[in-house]
Amino acid sequence: MDEFSLIKQFFEQPNAAADKDNLHLLKGIGDDCAVLRVPDGKDLVFSLDTLVEGVHFPHNADAAELAWRLLGAAVSDLAAMGAQPNNFTLALTLPSLDQNWLQRFSENLAQAASQYHITLAGGDTTKGPLTLSAQVQGFVDRDQALLRNAAKLGDLVCVTGTLGDSRAGLSLLDKEQLNAAQHYLLERYYRPEPRVATGLIIKAFANACIDISDGLLADLGHILSQSQLGAKLLSDAIPMSSQMCDVAGDQALQWALSGGEDFELCFTIPKEAWPSMQQALQGHHIKVSQIGEIVEQTGIQLYQNNIWRPVEKAGFNHFQTT
Amino acid sequence: MDEFSLIKQFFEQPNAAADKDNLHLLKGIGDDCAVLRVPDGKDLVFSLDTLVEGVHFPHNADAAELAWRLLGAAVSDLAAMGAQPNNFTLALTLPSLDQNWLQRFSENLAQAASQYHITLAGGDTTKGPLTLSAQVQGFVDRDQALLRNAAKLGDLVCVTGTLGDSRAGLSLLDKEQLNAAQHYLLERYYRPEPRVATGLIIKAFANACIDISDGLLADLGHILSQSQLGAKLLSDAIPMSSQMCDVAGDQALQWALSGGEDFELCFTIPKEAWPSMQQALQGHHIKVSQIGEIVEQTGIQLYQNNIWRPVEKAGFNHFQTT
Repeated sequence: MDEFSLIKQFFEQPNAAADKDNLHLLKGIGDDCAVLRVPDGKDLVFSLDTLVEGVHFPHNADAAELAWRLLGAAVSDLAAMGAQPNNFTLALTLPSLDQNWLQRFSENLAQAASQYHITLAGGDTTKGPLTLSAQVQGFVDRDQALLRNAAKLGDLVCVTGTLGDSRAGLSLLDKEQLNAAQHYLLERYYRPEPRVATGLIIKAFANACIDISDGLLADLGHILSQSQLGAKLLSDAIPMSSQMCDVAGDQALQWALSGGEDFELCFTIPKEAWPSMQQALQGHHIKVSQIGEIVEQTGIQLYQNNIWRPVEKAGFNHFQTT
Repeated sequence: MDEFSLIKQFFEQPNAAADKDNLHLLKGIGDDCAVLRVPDGKDLVFSLDTLVEGVHFPHNADAAELAWRLLGAAVSDLAAMGAQPNNFTLALTLPSLDQNWLQRFSENLAQAASQYHITLAGGDTTKGPLTLSAQVQGFVDRDQALLRNAAKLGDLVCVTGTLGDSRAGLSLLDKEQLNAAQHYLLERYYRPEPRVATGLIIKAFANACIDISDGLLADLGHILSQSQLGAKLLSDAIPMSSQMCDVAGDQALQWALSGGEDFELCFTIPKEAWPSMQQALQGHHIKVSQIGEIVEQTGIQLYQNNIWRPVEKAGFNHFQTT
């Protein structure tokens, strides 16, 4: 089997149906380039994410979990722009042609793609240390993409879902015999659910938005530095699951503030938009919480135990040397 | 230095000017996604290419050459669609934070990007075995992208430039004290020049097109299998440089037919379009040669030494196991 039949066997067939349903993707896998017709009145948004064996996931990680994490994390960037996912490309570097691995990976990738309404449009397969990159692309109404630099003084700071669950899941990786709560956290780690539907609702109200991949403090920090503003957060308002609190114990708040890979959205909205947004969110299965507000003084201050104190952002950096 | 300041220092600054000049790229590096406005009446075409250390290039390869090869090879896919390059993303996986390497790589990437009129729009930097992926994106008039499956019976088969030069350059990698001809071939290997300008001219005339990355026979083979046709080629018509012939000796034709990474274009045009195309190409610095024609019988036949014989396609496959 060579590279061409590999692509054909594992990646063209499962997506034949998805291709047919995607009227914007005029040409998918199989030419020098894919061809996309962006609808009139829309802008294209796109983001590229990489996972490396031994860095982002352990050796011998389950190919199914890799497929879900790769695509979930990448699609989360589209959610943070308030975008509708459309297509993605895959750069797959493999140490060997392991057909069982490819079967499991491609099946799960096709399932994840179907769930996120995104079509595999092309890519490159090469030999080398296991590395996966995905570029996801989506559509937003012209000039309506949610950017990081648009927070306004007095805005409410909001987050979706609960924070710290993925960090708690990480702490359970080697544990055997999980109870239901622990199983829930592990799933939150392995299969983060990108908040696409939530992003599409809140985009009408939000000023600035980011997805939480490096931890709330680090990612809110990007909104603040790009908007040249600061934030005050109420520790009691940070949404945490009971499952996470049980596993985290004393570290619960720390994990919620700094744990990475939750892939929830953090965004800011004008105070007066809160009631309308709540109305628009009625019946939606993801809760949105107010956790603080945007202030003039740069940095982040946290209200805890009746005092305000500045907090350091502490995200995950691949090349942190200090 | 962390990941964020790395991106800022090496990749944001050199492209600030390029970003300003690219009116279609509404948002580049620095948000969850880049934002692109595809012009009215245009389709977007895109392609993802990966280079892996030890597979596509040797250990300790010059960072400058990597930057040029990565972008040159990727932009060549845009040329093969008859597209105008617009922007690209970079997935950079690095074993360590070598500032000298990054300085040289990013400077040359910016130079190559400037030469190919393409803007760095975003990407991902991660720690791991040296691997580089680039997704390039460009514009074509709606429904005018040059595809592989559109060759017609009776079409002329054409190629740009000369073939086999890159293969000859490869054979000179370890040689010291190169003469001018050998230096030329090595440059053809290190810095393939994507045929963007030629693609933009020939697109008005061509039916099918591909860029020659795996060798003429293999790549023409893709056009033929997707068009369900065959081709007859005249060995005497295959364009070869005198420099290549000198280095290749008896192997010259073999290298021209099967050598990879020439990044010339192979395309088919109706016979009657040849004179108009030649007129459109007047003053253009790249020669286009007729090398044969499209026939009904599948496969490729080569006329050499007064006989026709079928030839096997023999391209480069990463996972060839037979």
